[in-house]
Amino acid sequence: MTDLLFVNASQVVTCAGPARARKGAEMRDIGILTGAAVAVSEGRVAVIGAERHVAPAYEGATRIDCKGRVLMPGLVDSHTHAVFGRPRFEEHELRAEGHDYMEIAKRGGGIHSSVRDFHSRSAEDLLALSTARVATLASYGTTTLEIKSGYGLSLEDELKALRVVDRLRQASPLRIVATWLGAHEIPLERRASEATRAEHMGDLISTILPAVAGQGIATFADVFCEPGVFTIDETRRILEASRRAGLGLKLHADELATSGGAELAASLGAASADHLAAVSDAGVAALAASDTVATLLPGTMLFLGKSRQAPARALIDGGAAVALATDYNPGTSPTVNFPLMLTLGVSQLRMTVAEVVNAATVNGAAALGLAGETGQIAPGFAADLALFDIGDIRELPYWYGAKLCVGSWRAGRPCHPYEPELS
Amino acid sequence: MTDLLFVNASQVVTCAGPARARKGAEMRDIGILTGAAVAVSEGRVAVIGAERHVAPAYEGATRIDCKGRVLMPGLVDSHTHAVFGRPRFEEHELRAEGHDYMEIAKRGGGIHSSVRDFHSRSAEDLLALSTARVATLASYGTTTLEIKSGYGLSLEDELKALRVVDRLRQASPLRIVATWLGAHEIPLERRASEATRAEHMGDLISTILPAVAGQGIATFADVFCEPGVFTIDETRRILEASRRAGLGLKLHADELATSGGAELAASLGAASADHLAAVSDAGVAALAASDTVATLLPGTMLFLGKSRQAPARALIDGGAAVALATDYNPGTSPTVNFPLMLTLGVSQLRMTVAEVVNAATVNGAAALGLAGETGQIAPGFAADLALFDIGDIRELPYWYGAKLCVGSWRAGRPCHPYEPELS
Repeated sequence: MTDLLFVNASQVVTCAGPARARKGAEMRDIGILTGAAVAVSEGRVAVIGAERHVAPAYEGATRIDCKGRVLMPGLVDSHTHAVFGRPRFEEHELRAEGHDYMEIAKRGGGIHSSVRDFHSRSAEDLLALSTARVATLASYGTTTLEIKSGYGLSLEDELKALRVVDRLRQASPLRIVATWLGAHEIPLERRASEATRAEHMGDLISTILPAVAGQGIATFADVFCEPGVFTIDETRRILEASRRAGLGLKLHADELATSGGAELAASLGAASADHLAAVSDAGVAALAASDTVATLLPGTMLFLGKSRQAPARALIDGGAAVALATDYNPGTSPTVNFPLMLTLGVSQLRMTVAEVVNAATVNGAAALGLAGETGQIAPGFAADLALFDIGDIRELPYWYGAKLCVGSWRAGRPCHPYEPELS
Repeated sequence: MTDLLFVNASQVVTCAGPARARKGAEMRDIGILTGAAVAVSEGRVAVIGAERHVAPAYEGATRIDCKGRVLMPGLVDSHTHAVFGRPRFEEHELRAEGHDYMEIAKRGGGIHSSVRDFHSRSAEDLLALSTARVATLASYGTTTLEIKSGYGLSLEDELKALRVVDRLRQASPLRIVATWLGAHEIPLERRASEATRAEHMGDLISTILPAVAGQGIATFADVFCEPGVFTIDETRRILEASRRAGLGLKLHADELATSGGAELAASLGAASADHLAAVSDAGVAALAASDTVATLLPGTMLFLGKSRQAPARALIDGGAAVALATDYNPGTSPTVNFPLMLTLGVSQLRMTVAEVVNAATVNGAAALGLAGETGQIAPGFAADLALFDIGDIRELPYWYGAKLCVGSWRAGRPCHPYEPELS
């Protein structure tokens, strides 16, 4: 594998520091270097320094001219549902007309329509759709992508989902992390009574989880903990069993209503608690006192037309680690534009530029248990890099809605190919 | 000029109808055709119909294969400040930290820093910057672009601005409409007293306006009518003089505070009243009873972190004509992604998909006095077209933040070149 030498970046944003999430005031530092070159060897960052010092040792390296642009860690999108079939565009307008998420779900629309659609598709079909979508996500700067199952629900279809994610993981130029979200929703046919609901809980814990864990195709387990879906007690049972089965833990917590999900995530030592638009003060305090990353998904609230956003300032000022992610999914956040989430971080969540950059890199990596591998440009870390067509990192959230990524690399291999001569 | 024949669109969204704005319930109809071909001759739409009926008469035409995508009128962005120098990205974070627009302006930042920067740049420099930015705007689907002056303020620099817009108009593949916004702000050196302020009003009306009108380089006049900037009375005086000088009228109205700008726009018969986040019920009623287009700029409120948006539903339900635009400018809305405004229209303003499409095409055209020329795909109209990489028009606002335009044409000539083989 050829060495690489990145030169002529206007800024190299390193996010360098300890191999863990940045908490609270630590999020204000991103390590901006000017005049720095980055040498990559065997897919890892080898040296960062002034070009005249670095270049002599890398004469045989492929020289990549950044042409005055900003080089930074590839973006880490730590919360997506990127394997799905049909986009649910008709619901966007239904919501504008006043039908809310729970109402659409109760009618058998919403997630249930994605589940029916998912059941009807072959793994090959889903793989083809997902491969194209993942390439599009990469073209906006993402190099690490978490993907959850959860449109399968049944044993057979959850395994289908995770096998598709696994094939993506093997074939895609991106770094892909699989999460089993079998507890995304109760199947319609089992919502009828407490007995069938209990039966489903039994299947999740005693049948589906062991099968998923046994096949080694998921790194994390996640539960949609929300009134009307999984209760706090059910969530705890599923996650404790998942932990015993060797999976890391994540949690959809306090998205639409306050239910104590954040506190549960912290008490379980989950890698992340996600959404949090309705988190309580106690939940904020619990996360701040823990190593659980608070993963905020402001695009979802924007797209759903909610005026409320998660209390990012309270979380950071309280000392928590905050990550940002797209929540890319066909119902509530069909966006491929991760940098737009950084705009929302600044404009809507009142985060600083450094905070949103850490939230999309090192803290996203920590939310995936990858804080020692990706999310920063530092010696020994994977050469997961993104190049943006801007001269100052503050322009990344600023030019909102634009497609600014002109190239990216995962472990030194092209992810979204960079063609300096064309751009 | 070769004839063109567009075939194999999944949908042709025509927006066809009378050559005027769609008001109220009329906005719900956009005329979606399936299986339709569009023939273009001499830069104008000649025929729309089933391919087998249209094709025989256009055997010599260049055949454009839409490959199952959606063909629609090119987007009409009727409110931008696209000729500027330095981007003001540092203010984004300042606002996140609690400094508001008026506060930044009073410190000599905000628009005044754009004015100082504008004064320091040559016309050549501004033309080069603007040419690249306009091409980027085109790459998201815009084929008609209004551009305002207003960072010059002085006679010399306002003429410089409008001459740059005029050169863009002549050289750019887009349809460009120039608006004189000399009354964008009071120059700092003239804010000191009522006397110097009156002096500036005199200059605007007796010196700058006649020079602008005399050179024939502006179609519209616009005023930033807002407490602390131009009062209602000052705005009326400037616009009445502008009308006498032969210019069409526009108005920045009720953006941050309610001042009666909407009522003034309606009473003057302005082509549009723009912003309107703080419009009163009386203002809504006045617009609904008039032919003035209510131009809403939801990206600005999003970017500024305001929770309030203009009352689109009240305007449409009351019978007004609503347009959407980007407000592309370096301080409060640096977005090139017009389709993202359609997302905000549905998600934040509770408009239907048909309403946002009309708002971005035929009603944008009406806001520029071009309702008989562009904004619809109908025989005799200019062949201003945009092709989006979606199969259903509802996907345009749905895939929020994505760059979906794969080609556009203005009067039948490539605007954002389409390369079917590459896409």
